[in-house]
Amino acid sequence: MSRTDTLRSAVEWRDGVLEVIDQTLLPDRLEVRTLTTVAETADAIRRLVVRGAPAIGIAAAFGVVLGIREGRDAEDAAAELEAARPTAVNLSYAVRRVARAADPEREAIEIATRDRESCRRIGEHGREELAHASRLLTHCNAGRLATGGIGTALGVVYAKAHAGEAVEVLASETRPLLQGARLTAWELADAGIPVTLCADGAAGSAMAAGRVDAVIVGCDRVAQNGDTANKIGTYTHAVLARANGIPFYVAGPMSSFDPETPTGAQIVVEERAGDELTNLDVEVWNPAFDVTPAEYVTAFVTDMGVLRPPFEQSIGDALARAKAEGLR
Amino acid sequence: MSRTDTLRSAVEWRDGVLEVIDQTLLPDRLEVRTLTTVAETADAIRRLVVRGAPAIGIAAAFGVVLGIREGRDAEDAAAELEAARPTAVNLSYAVRRVARAADPEREAIEIATRDRESCRRIGEHGREELAHASRLLTHCNAGRLATGGIGTALGVVYAKAHAGEAVEVLASETRPLLQGARLTAWELADAGIPVTLCADGAAGSAMAAGRVDAVIVGCDRVAQNGDTANKIGTYTHAVLARANGIPFYVAGPMSSFDPETPTGAQIVVEERAGDELTNLDVEVWNPAFDVTPAEYVTAFVTDMGVLRPPFEQSIGDALARAKAEGLR
Repeated sequence: MSRTDTLRSAVEWRDGVLEVIDQTLLPDRLEVRTLTTVAETADAIRRLVVRGAPAIGIAAAFGVVLGIREGRDAEDAAAELEAARPTAVNLSYAVRRVARAADPEREAIEIATRDRESCRRIGEHGREELAHASRLLTHCNAGRLATGGIGTALGVVYAKAHAGEAVEVLASETRPLLQGARLTAWELADAGIPVTLCADGAAGSAMAAGRVDAVIVGCDRVAQNGDTANKIGTYTHAVLARANGIPFYVAGPMSSFDPETPTGAQIVVEERAGDELTNLDVEVWNPAFDVTPAEYVTAFVTDMGVLRPPFEQSIGDALARAKAEGLR
Repeated sequence: MSRTDTLRSAVEWRDGVLEVIDQTLLPDRLEVRTLTTVAETADAIRRLVVRGAPAIGIAAAFGVVLGIREGRDAEDAAAELEAARPTAVNLSYAVRRVARAADPEREAIEIATRDRESCRRIGEHGREELAHASRLLTHCNAGRLATGGIGTALGVVYAKAHAGEAVEVLASETRPLLQGARLTAWELADAGIPVTLCADGAAGSAMAAGRVDAVIVGCDRVAQNGDTANKIGTYTHAVLARANGIPFYVAGPMSSFDPETPTGAQIVVEERAGDELTNLDVEVWNPAFDVTPAEYVTAFVTDMGVLRPPFEQSIGDALARAKAEGLR
């Protein structure tokens, strides 16, 4: 039996104060940090205290509200928050919406509420799509800790578990910051869902050994053509899935789809400090994300349903429908 | 200018005592351990104090000599050492040779000497083969620390540097035990060769971004058909190289080729403890090696030259020639 309701949300707004679970301390300690300024919020986003594209969007949305309370210009606060991390599109989408809203706090609350609903829908659509897949490989953390709800990729896992369907997860540890090992393994174990951890380099072997029915990951930004930016290592899993005849799904709300980015070539990939990998005095190449070409994606599991190739069209249609529903 | 001679050998035999660099302590401390019994030698192999298929073979060869000095039966000592790690074939090859030799100490010294010469030859053959490739991606550590000489995959790097050719290395960190980050980055920096470290999951992105001319790795056991067991993550790099049109080379002495193993399906892959990845109470799948199907290998760079497809034939021929030369 899964327990999907025991964990408090990664991001919560209480009486004008933003509370976030400090994800840099998990799984050793579950500690909540209180954020009261734009600077604190931007710093929490930059240092990955709060991470996961939807959760970052929600935190930044309330960050703009905090900025207005500080007496700051809303657009100026939005710009500072937007600069904290360049890759996730939810961040820029959320801060712009709030900065331009007549009632910014209400708009931020609306973004958080919609994200919870988006996760629920993604879970349901994914559950139908993955009816015959029980052994799911995921990368990084696209779960309760990464969103305002039950997660995107893990939202599908929770939906399957909640419906009493067999589901087990192979989580790749996700170097350098180990979001798979620290966050996904922890939150699934916490929910009573069977999870097995493996090194990133072992995931391909697991696929070749027939241990994986489908791969499902989250996304930080999806271009118009379906090229997908997500945690570094995602592209590798996609290529290995293809080589082994395993479907590769990307789960995310329409707020992660960027109508202003035609292809992956236009996505800015954040490069982080080398000391995340080593203290040796050597060069380090440490991109936080990679771009998986759309050709490797079987389908997108979204809050507007399952989007299939040709993606240019299915994504365009879904964005239009989401806009009509106020979801984008 | 590279300095390939500053480092003492990973495994040295001095006046009847086996000295090994404790690789579990690198790069923080360069410490030498003295081994005087079979049990100590087997323990050092098991705990990866000494690692790398050729270096393990050399250490185990002297381990049998230590066993005979302890008054133990040579075959019994060989069996204990062989059980320390199941995947590398050099280990079982070396202990059997020494246990059956008329002069075991001389045989062990011969194995160490031959390995140094094998590394030199691999370096030269690889230098010719990779004349037009200067940006090499490697995985794990197949260098001076892994052999009795200048290394296998890194032997090619040292040979290129020694000949004054441009060469730089992208080293994937190699989770869970970080041999790339701890050993390869350290030994190349020590030798003055440009090295850049990246997460295992970033190597595919580096290939897609055009940062890699060729991939070159070592091997723990090569089957008759060319299927290759090597450090976990190697298979992933091979598939990514293929997807990006980049040649994928496996470097190793003929002592790493096993005429008794028809295909990769017969190779026993060691699974190690889960606490190498996490202290969380979750399942862990931690294979130490994977098997790369021969179809992904462009060529083998060996002490008997460069072996090309069809491998069944080229490997068989090379094994016969190595046997005639006393190299196998």
